[in-house]
Amino acid sequence: MRMMKAAVFVKPGSIVLEEKPIPTVGPGDALIRITTTTICGTDIHILKGEYPVKPGLIVGHEPVGVIEDIGEGVTGYEVGQRVIVGAITPCGQCYHCLDGHQAQCGGKPIGGWRFGNSIDGCQAEYLLVPNAQANLSLIPDGLTDEQVLMCPDIMSTGFGGAESGRIKIGDTVVVFAQGPIGLCATAGARLKGATRIIVVDTVPARLQVAQRFGADTVIDYKSVDPVEEIMRITEGRGVDVAIEALGTQETFESCLRVLKPAGVLSSLGVYSGKLTLPLDAIAAGLGDHKIVTTLCPGGKERMRRLLNVVESGRVDLQPLVTHRFGLDQIEEAYDLFANQRDGVLKVAITP
Amino acid sequence: MRMMKAAVFVKPGSIVLEEKPIPTVGPGDALIRITTTTICGTDIHILKGEYPVKPGLIVGHEPVGVIEDIGEGVTGYEVGQRVIVGAITPCGQCYHCLDGHQAQCGGKPIGGWRFGNSIDGCQAEYLLVPNAQANLSLIPDGLTDEQVLMCPDIMSTGFGGAESGRIKIGDTVVVFAQGPIGLCATAGARLKGATRIIVVDTVPARLQVAQRFGADTVIDYKSVDPVEEIMRITEGRGVDVAIEALGTQETFESCLRVLKPAGVLSSLGVYSGKLTLPLDAIAAGLGDHKIVTTLCPGGKERMRRLLNVVESGRVDLQPLVTHRFGLDQIEEAYDLFANQRDGVLKVAITP
Amino acid sequence: MRMMKAAVFVKPGSIVLEEKPIPTVGPGDALIRITTTTICGTDIHILKGEYPVKPGLIVGHEPVGVIEDIGEGVTGYEVGQRVIVGAITPCGQCYHCLDGHQAQCGGKPIGGWRFGNSIDGCQAEYLLVPNAQANLSLIPDGLTDEQVLMCPDIMSTGFGGAESGRIKIGDTVVVFAQGPIGLCATAGARLKGATRIIVVDTVPARLQVAQRFGADTVIDYKSVDPVEEIMRITEGRGVDVAIEALGTQETFESCLRVLKPAGVLSSLGVYSGKLTLPLDAIAAGLGDHKIVTTLCPGGKERMRRLLNVVESGRVDLQPLVTHRFGLDQIEEAYDLFANQRDGVLKVAITP
Amino acid sequence: MRMMKAAVFVKPGSIVLEEKPIPTVGPGDALIRITTTTICGTDIHILKGEYPVKPGLIVGHEPVGVIEDIGEGVTGYEVGQRVIVGAITPCGQCYHCLDGHQAQCGGKPIGGWRFGNSIDGCQAEYLLVPNAQANLSLIPDGLTDEQVLMCPDIMSTGFGGAESGRIKIGDTVVVFAQGPIGLCATAGARLKGATRIIVVDTVPARLQVAQRFGADTVIDYKSVDPVEEIMRITEGRGVDVAIEALGTQETFESCLRVLKPAGVLSSLGVYSGKLTLPLDAIAAGLGDHKIVTTLCPGGKERMRRLLNVVESGRVDLQPLVTHRFGLDQIEEAYDLFANQRDGVLKVAITP
Repeated sequence: MRMMKAAVFVKPGSIVLEEKPIPTVGPGDALIRITTTTICGTDIHILKGEYPVKPGLIVGHEPVGVIEDIGEGVTGYEVGQRVIVGAITPCGQCYHCLDGHQAQCGGKPIGGWRFGNSIDGCQAEYLLVPNAQANLSLIPDGLTDEQVLMCPDIMSTGFGGAESGRIKIGDTVVVFAQGPIGLCATAGARLKGATRIIVVDTVPARLQVAQRFGADTVIDYKSVDPVEEIMRITEGRGVDVAIEALGTQETFESCLRVLKPAGVLSSLGVYSGKLTLPLDAIAAGLGDHKIVTTLCPGGKERMRRLLNVVESGRVDLQPLVTHRFGLDQIEEAYDLFANQRDGVLKVAITP
Repeated sequence: MRMMKAAVFVKPGSIVLEEKPIPTVGPGDALIRITTTTICGTDIHILKGEYPVKPGLIVGHEPVGVIEDIGEGVTGYEVGQRVIVGAITPCGQCYHCLDGHQAQCGGKPIGGWRFGNSIDGCQAEYLLVPNAQANLSLIPDGLTDEQVLMCPDIMSTGFGGAESGRIKIGDTVVVFAQGPIGLCATAGARLKGATRIIVVDTVPARLQVAQRFGADTVIDYKSVDPVEEIMRITEGRGVDVAIEALGTQETFESCLRVLKPAGVLSSLGVYSGKLTLPLDAIAAGLGDHKIVTTLCPGGKERMRRLLNVVESGRVDLQPLVTHRFGLDQIEEAYDLFANQRDGVLKVAITP
Repeated sequence: MRMMKAAVFVKPGSIVLEEKPIPTVGPGDALIRITTTTICGTDIHILKGEYPVKPGLIVGHEPVGVIEDIGEGVTGYEVGQRVIVGAITPCGQCYHCLDGHQAQCGGKPIGGWRFGNSIDGCQAEYLLVPNAQANLSLIPDGLTDEQVLMCPDIMSTGFGGAESGRIKIGDTVVVFAQGPIGLCATAGARLKGATRIIVVDTVPARLQVAQRFGADTVIDYKSVDPVEEIMRITEGRGVDVAIEALGTQETFESCLRVLKPAGVLSSLGVYSGKLTLPLDAIAAGLGDHKIVTTLCPGGKERMRRLLNVVESGRVDLQPLVTHRFGLDQIEEAYDLFANQRDGVLKVAITP
Repeated sequence: MRMMKAAVFVKPGSIVLEEKPIPTVGPGDALIRITTTTICGTDIHILKGEYPVKPGLIVGHEPVGVIEDIGEGVTGYEVGQRVIVGAITPCGQCYHCLDGHQAQCGGKPIGGWRFGNSIDGCQAEYLLVPNAQANLSLIPDGLTDEQVLMCPDIMSTGFGGAESGRIKIGDTVVVFAQGPIGLCATAGARLKGATRIIVVDTVPARLQVAQRFGADTVIDYKSVDPVEEIMRITEGRGVDVAIEALGTQETFESCLRVLKPAGVLSSLGVYSGKLTLPLDAIAAGLGDHKIVTTLCPGGKERMRRLLNVVESGRVDLQPLVTHRFGLDQIEEAYDLFANQRDGVLKVAITP
């Protein structure tokens, strides 16, 4: 049995590099040799034991790589092609996928998220991709690994937040929190035609990147009350769409407090503890407000569209890669990323 | 000054019949002589002081009547025509109305609800209708007052709940609570193509009416745990759309607990106190769930469509009228309705 | 090699019963033993040579049957289960399926229609189903073959016409032509909340069935000019949605002539020759009109929803089956159906 | 009676500057003193007698100006404020406006277009605005007349073409013809998230402006067959959305020929003569294609959104103004514009 190195969840607090067998393909699968991957905020939740996965699981769900082997029944691909695969890998053939809810594949909540969750992930030398026919997306020539590294998860998620908000031309949009996903939501809001994009964070470097990605107004929540400030600059009108990109009661509630009647709260955050709806902010349920949650859209068609965005130069997410590590150094990368040291936004991991 | 009788909010606990001047029309207005009206659950909130209005205000927002006078600038109507007016009276000309959010007219939360809220209402002999051009809807010949009495509010609200749920052909829908609005949501879900409609209540008479209005399965929440029962009969799949028609933490939460991933919670209830989102039921924010609140849609186009429903015989809401009173007896009617005595569903009040 | 009987297209004018090998399953396939099938209008186009298929092809695309064999990789099914399969069999995994356009699977026009078109069909004792995971739909217990026989094609198509029209509660809808698909469009319009459904045909039996399926007004185009009549009964307003269910210049044009500004023409017909847009009817392109064409939606989720409709009793399409034949008599059935003799609507063919 | 100068349609071939009375406001009206206006392609159709209006009518429908007088019942505005008014002036209060179809106000085709069509227009010193409450839109400080001059018509129309096409992130879009409206459609497609925008024209200056507005690929239809070229560069896939911005059989047909199955043809052109649907391009009606026509959206909410676009700097349409004339020179301006001399795109007319 050929072996590979892989980052494995051992127990809360411990993700370590181990030797694992290289998977073999079955019908419908593909094997990818990983060339670049990254660490996601969700991986940190896993590391901390806040999101439970089985001990022994290989983590990671943002793969860039090269096709190494192709299972029976998968057509139209060749060994050696460069591909990305979405963090979410829908089967395309269950009732829920066919109904358009690919991220909830199989009808189980979050059912489409498999890599580094219900099956082995991509922080490894090799990755087995299920339902490969629905999930392998070719990287256009001329694009580097780092240019497309954000497509599988944070770009898809952040853009999804903008799309679920049903942003219209001329909308005012606020994005609460400008971590990697919030920054992608900012870029997505710009891409959808919002004409006033307000972002809220406190880290200067993030607010600067936000402006490069399309923010018109930046608010440092440590300097000013963001709800008051947003109501002031919108002259009491509030925003058309509020995107939550952190996962806390405070940002969730602030979104509702700045939302106009009939506005949309597009929620991307992963919440823990309790989440309360401030009834005064939603007119006791009579304000025609909408709250929409969005899990990262996946599948190869989604990836194709995001690759189009990258290839066209509309959005350049490479500035998000602030640090680079070999797979051998992944424990060090986790340490940096989990502690948000050194201005880290995203890391690139190369086996 | 000519005088009329009207039900006036005096103070919490007290709505009394008083003499009030008959209003006179200004530009854009119409004066309606009320022939039938009714009492809404919201009026009970006002009576109890739970929803604040100014003392001295005439209450009521479900008018059926006859045009008595027409203000300058209102065209295409004649004195003597029978009309209804929606509970919500949008101006049609502000930014928010023109953007399609007529119930939030003016951009204030619930801004479109004026009758018996921000201006005098219709539990009176006469009613002044603002923005009459946008709000007077002719009653087709052959329809009685009682046949169209539910159009201004509960039919529009209940149907709105079904519409906001974006019900598709073949959907399974649950409606929590079968008061008048919940019953209309049931009828609306049927009209939109749901093929399995589950309703939850405990009053036998209401469950019976629910079956006449299209419910396929009735659940008495006192006999069985509705969440468990719904998950059982849907074989663990959950419902596509859950409609909340009561306004409590328990029903709101139950809606989320039976909702499939990517399902829609369509909320009609008026909530008080606190409202908490059960995070386990929404996959911590990753389940692609939607929560949509809907205030009663108004305006004459909405009323025209609802009158079409009545005229076509698709839905007959007259069975909801269980009791009848003269305007002189309105205090007695309030007493009956507030205490939900004698199997009351809706009362008809005739000046 | 085991052999079966099958209806084979030989040349224009000739579909004959032949001996053909029973197919064997490969990975992803299923083999269905047909218990009931039917003949479609499209099959008549094939018979007449108006729609070209390869000589030697087994025709037919409306299968009801029993699973006989299951290929590798197909899970969750058992031999012996009763199933239907849609006329359109999307793969679920190509770019176009994943983008929600399953009927155009693969990005080729009509790419999702394979049975009796690009691969062997179901007017035979056995049928090989590709992409079985996405296409086998279990028949609920208690439903007969004839009750579900319309789901694979005409019910899905007709309902699709109503859905593509985006019918809203209170809409007025016209359906031009009340053949089997037009009748299903009528039933679909009813199911979606149209409150005035006008149908146009001339065959008394069809107009009668239309009334049972939900038509409010029937127009015999031989007795009265349908455009004039529709404009008269809508008082010059026109209809909100016009459904074309025949495929001729005259019905297409009539749809536009009765359509209100901003209305939707939902087109189901298969056109031949030339199709001209009457510019006066669409305000020279400035009337905000929409023209939407719809190919029969397929896939097992679609079938599941349609089976829900049948099981709930909302719509009963069995009255469409006017004649019954054994597979041995299929040439006779073609003769009857092609010539529309004896009041035939649909035939049931049982191997 | 005070008099003003105005461009009046006299007879086909003749629009001349005449003296006309300055209108006086009635209830609901406003009087605008025009500071800048322009000439539209539609005005040329009027000039040539191709679009019939009454002799004596003042033409023009793209007003920028200052409020001079306000009628009874119009609130929230003051004399002296700078405003634009859309080319389309919906009432906001009829059945069709309340149903969201403001451009078809009143239910008559093109009913919302009044200026220079059914009532006097704005190529004059003063303009009477009906339904002023729904139509006066304040110009943000700091924006010049020329910066906002395109909002009332071509920007709204062109963007409307992109919006009606329901462009999604990652779409490939073609715009046929790059006159002023086509150029705005290009800018709108960019603003909606299209990542590959192909434009077709032959005038080098227009193709250059197109590139500034967001076109990725320009095709000169005199150098290459645009249908072949588009199919080549999309590798046979076709485009997701095709926008027609000319109004000819050839461009309409080409749109369909490059459209993928299930794609949308968004039509902006004003057609004359005959318009034929090429059946092979739409798979005989089975390709799930959509054809959507769009009249310029109007009303003050629309204008507010477009002014947001201008103010945000997202799109700068001032480069479209290639020539400037006083109102006294308007006949000369018509001559230049009608004959498309001297590289004219749009003219600015200042009374």
